[in-house]
Amino acid sequence: MAKVIFGMTMSLDGFVNDRNGSVEKLYPDLDALRKSAILQELIENTGAVVMGRNAFAMSEDPDWFAGNYEFQVPIFVLTHHPPKKMPKQTDQLTFTFVTDGIESAIRQAKAAAKAKDVTVIGGASTIRQCLQAQVGDELEVGIMPVLFGSGLRLFENIGTEEIQLEKIRVDEIPDGGTNLRFRVAR
Amino acid sequence: MAKVIFGMTMSLDGFVNDRNGSVEKLYPDLDALRKSAILQELIENTGAVVMGRNAFAMSEDPDWFAGNYEFQVPIFVLTHHPPKKMPKQTDQLTFTFVTDGIESAIRQAKAAAKAKDVTVIGGASTIRQCLQAQVGDELEVGIMPVLFGSGLRLFENIGTEEIQLEKIRVDEIPDGGTNLRFRVAR
Repeated sequence: MAKVIFGMTMSLDGFVNDRNGSVEKLYPDLDALRKSAILQELIENTGAVVMGRNAFAMSEDPDWFAGNYEFQVPIFVLTHHPPKKMPKQTDQLTFTFVTDGIESAIRQAKAAAKAKDVTVIGGASTIRQCLQAQVGDELEVGIMPVLFGSGLRLFENIGTEEIQLEKIRVDEIPDGGTNLRFRVAR
Repeated sequence: MAKVIFGMTMSLDGFVNDRNGSVEKLYPDLDALRKSAILQELIENTGAVVMGRNAFAMSEDPDWFAGNYEFQVPIFVLTHHPPKKMPKQTDQLTFTFVTDGIESAIRQAKAAAKAKDVTVIGGASTIRQCLQAQVGDELEVGIMPVLFGSGLRLFENIGTEEIQLEKIRVDEIPDGGTNLRFRVAR
């Protein structure tokens, strides 16, 4: 059964971008990150991706994903406004724009992933929705060695209940980062 | 030359206590923590302690420290209102109540620690003061496997500048916690 892996990389003080909206200091060397064992393993285990509208919009050219994005798998984009023109697709990478919420996106992604995992790529709002809707099995948080002081917080307004986690692994990631993976208690 | 080690244990979402003010889930097994290799090492390297007024007040009986506290060293308590009655002291553990700020407390603690390190014990306000006054050399943050959702944030209003860190070690701590130690860039 496919697991749902969700999470993001943040500064030690919990921000997913700095006061100017930049994520540069969280990913100072994207090439090293893309070649890292942990990302390769994640890519190998991922059968489908759910991403928020903002993560999708990070690429200025929506046709860039096909052939270039780390994950060449079916991608389910959470959005209220699907683009008028469908981005380029391939046999491996397809796009589905999901307008009826995170549960629906996860359900469709699980079906597409078959025995593999579903990986949820942020932004922060998408990660929060996973927590609120309790659709995530494993939370993966990368912690980078910087204090931003302000910016966009990952864990803000995540709900009114405490959520117990169980740490299942710790990995070093490039540029002094530390990746923590937790199972989410239900 | 003595280093200044400062930091605290927090939930993954950055809170040093939960919405009820409780720290219980951050330290579910104090005995295991006290016996842990990492705390033993910290104790061994610590020549003096700086603590905030709230950390000092965590013990209902101020006479408890002498003979019982993990750190049997000179203790410098940051406060605006020194207690009228001096708590019990020993040859190893002495109290100095410092009313003229964090820089003064650190300076006095360094002199007392001689070649050993100064360890700063929270609360959050004391840790923030260390960041703001740039008196800390190494930041140690324990991350526990729980999302509190609300409570008292460790990293809030820590200043207007980004602070670059350099990760120097990662240690497992009891109850699924992870201890991250960083050198603070100046």
